[in-house]
Amino acid sequence: MLPLKYVDIHMDDLVSELQTLIRQPSVSAKNEGIEECANLVQKILKNSGIKSEILRLRKGVAPIVFGEVMSKQNPSKTLMFYNHYDVQPAEPFDLWNDPPFSGTRKGNKVFGRGATDDKGEMITRIKAVEACLKTTGDVPCNIKFVIEGEEETGSAHIEDYLKKYKKKFSCDGVIWEFGYVDAKNRPIIGLGMKGLLFVELSVSESNIDAHSSLAALIKNPAWRLIDAVKTLRNTDGKILIKDWYNEVAPFSKNDLDVIRKEPFDESAFKKEFGIKSFVGNKKGMDAKKALVGGATCNIAGFVSGYTGEGAKTVLPGDALVKIDFRLIPKMVPSKQISRLKKHLKSKGFSDVKIKVFHGEAAARTDSSDPFVVQVKDAADSAFGKSILNVSNAGTGPMFPFAGILGAPCISIGSTYMFSRIHSPNEFARVDLLKKTTKCMCLIMDNFGNS
Amino acid sequence: MLPLKYVDIHMDDLVSELQTLIRQPSVSAKNEGIEECANLVQKILKNSGIKSEILRLRKGVAPIVFGEVMSKQNPSKTLMFYNHYDVQPAEPFDLWNDPPFSGTRKGNKVFGRGATDDKGEMITRIKAVEACLKTTGDVPCNIKFVIEGEEETGSAHIEDYLKKYKKKFSCDGVIWEFGYVDAKNRPIIGLGMKGLLFVELSVSESNIDAHSSLAALIKNPAWRLIDAVKTLRNTDGKILIKDWYNEVAPFSKNDLDVIRKEPFDESAFKKEFGIKSFVGNKKGMDAKKALVGGATCNIAGFVSGYTGEGAKTVLPGDALVKIDFRLIPKMVPSKQISRLKKHLKSKGFSDVKIKVFHGEAAARTDSSDPFVVQVKDAADSAFGKSILNVSNAGTGPMFPFAGILGAPCISIGSTYMFSRIHSPNEFARVDLLKKTTKCMCLIMDNFGNS
Repeated sequence: MLPLKYVDIHMDDLVSELQTLIRQPSVSAKNEGIEECANLVQKILKNSGIKSEILRLRKGVAPIVFGEVMSKQNPSKTLMFYNHYDVQPAEPFDLWNDPPFSGTRKGNKVFGRGATDDKGEMITRIKAVEACLKTTGDVPCNIKFVIEGEEETGSAHIEDYLKKYKKKFSCDGVIWEFGYVDAKNRPIIGLGMKGLLFVELSVSESNIDAHSSLAALIKNPAWRLIDAVKTLRNTDGKILIKDWYNEVAPFSKNDLDVIRKEPFDESAFKKEFGIKSFVGNKKGMDAKKALVGGATCNIAGFVSGYTGEGAKTVLPGDALVKIDFRLIPKMVPSKQISRLKKHLKSKGFSDVKIKVFHGEAAARTDSSDPFVVQVKDAADSAFGKSILNVSNAGTGPMFPFAGILGAPCISIGSTYMFSRIHSPNEFARVDLLKKTTKCMCLIMDNFGNS
Repeated sequence: MLPLKYVDIHMDDLVSELQTLIRQPSVSAKNEGIEECANLVQKILKNSGIKSEILRLRKGVAPIVFGEVMSKQNPSKTLMFYNHYDVQPAEPFDLWNDPPFSGTRKGNKVFGRGATDDKGEMITRIKAVEACLKTTGDVPCNIKFVIEGEEETGSAHIEDYLKKYKKKFSCDGVIWEFGYVDAKNRPIIGLGMKGLLFVELSVSESNIDAHSSLAALIKNPAWRLIDAVKTLRNTDGKILIKDWYNEVAPFSKNDLDVIRKEPFDESAFKKEFGIKSFVGNKKGMDAKKALVGGATCNIAGFVSGYTGEGAKTVLPGDALVKIDFRLIPKMVPSKQISRLKKHLKSKGFSDVKIKVFHGEAAARTDSSDPFVVQVKDAADSAFGKSILNVSNAGTGPMFPFAGILGAPCISIGSTYMFSRIHSPNEFARVDLLKKTTKCMCLIMDNFGNS
């Protein structure tokens, strides 16, 4: 039997194992069921014929489930599947139609927290390897699984794990933990993720909130903070911090070609969000370039003084803004932090305090990399058609994988765009789980035989 | 017996009646005990020999207690005492050392919500009139009491009352409901109050909070609102709205003289609030002028996006700022509102929504008015020394009194600067209640015999 046929026949097993996974809550934010779920994943890997072990960094850090199958026919190339067994909290519970950890199947859908993100994705990779093993007694290339338990809280230790187990994790290509499928059932093959720098800027003036009649004399920290943040970017979205864009490489000819081909329904997008125009009045190719490769400086939160109903004449003692900068390839987070600090100082804002929460570099696989062609070919076969995307607009820990392991990373999977990940009534589509599992079989085959 | 002697002898009665008033809660914000307190005040007026009645505007509006004594010796001049019988809510209860409505006396202090603001002030006026009546069988001028029940919620109907009862309330001078006494026991004779314009500006962009990765395309309302408010004033505090200062008259020579003489301990003020310098680096006379006569544009609140702990990469759907403008004499609130609207439009911010909460004009009695000399003379006699203040930096409904009744208004009273009005453990100082009661006797005498 061919592996793809095996996938067809064993879809009920796949769904049943996905349900088993969903029924084991594993909420990293609450440290709920993490060890139990790691053990369950290990058991499922074993049942599929994949040798596995639990890796640990230290007490208090969620373990990684590591799985491995050596290829007899082609032991010279190794493909890694990166996934995670932890899930987002299921709250608010009362908005779920079925209990969030019930794994209820209704027709083509399996509902539950983690149904898609990432237990659904994970099971497609495992079942694809099982299909090869059960039908051919081998895999087309060496396979490694790195399944972590802290993705939903920011993958705080993945870099440490990658460094500690650099040799064990060595590979020639990585299939990322998720991949979107659009409304026309086309998988989006993502070649990168943007980086992120999350900071808090704050100003304190008087040691207490004062009566606003004193605004004639006491400086208002909200005004001060506004003055400071206004220097960070212009109204077209361009960041005004000195040298901010220094390391940025322009898109390659190949990348531009990929961007040009990628479908983007501007008016549907605008309708979805109820907006009339984009930042800097960008249109067409410029809008698409911004989405995949634009650096941003976004106010994620601003708070000062009285924010309740009605009027209160108060002069706030402090003001705080939360800003996320999306970083693009070759920007180095630590460098950007110093530039931000230098900027505020040079503009006379030494009184603005900076707290850095999170710094993560962008990663991008060149669209001309042979791995891209192998994945694209597999996706076209499994789904009928697919879309190449130079970079996701969001952020994930792709940089340490690409950087430490030196392997290209590609995002491809079964995550239907409207499958409500991180929201109530998250679901996986069984048809997409099947196509993705087959796609993984084809990727292994293309990769091993290239 | 002379009235001042009567005051000395009857201080225990005054304290006991103040305690009775405190023990009747009258929280206008909760409509708690309002009618009961109005009736109690009427009873106290009657006991002091003052004819009184309850005035009403309409159902749902707190009544005004009106009191009146005609002078036999001098029926041509009328002095009004404006006070209020309502109090601020007493929360948080657990921070009070004694129950807030107990009126506990400890030595020189009477504790309780309203002890000073405004039941303490009110009782000094009533007892002063009683002292004249009981010792001389007359008052030196006609006396009117206007005691309202909505001051702590913004005196929403005082203007309507003044218009409706314009004739009944007619008078030649008004003693305001409070007057501060400084740390050196000097009463501050306040000749004015600033006005206030409280507005909310808001911007909406997308119809939902979006993932911040979309900041490359979706406009951020916080940025937009920041751009808008940045046009309102410069960093020195000058308001940049066209024609904002058009109606403002410069200080008179006399006013400047009063300002020059008023003590202001800059370094103690700065120490109190933990600040190093003032808005626009103002110092000395400039700082004093700003406090009594500067127009301000203050951010009372700013909120957008995620304001909790830690990082959340969100692109807010809306942003809101609460701004209070302190107005100075001759500024007309309705004119300033149109100017603000025009300003935002002309600067290209037609998308910024404006909600107006409150508009109140400033009022100021000219420092050369004879009434000022009469009050100052009385205060110097009663307290030993006093301070003239061109205007309080805060706001109260003085404008409708001055405007509709055409009478000068002066603030003088017993409110010790650190008596915790609006806070837990509010107290009145018995020594100041006595001095203030005597001061009121002397004011009536000076006023009637001028």
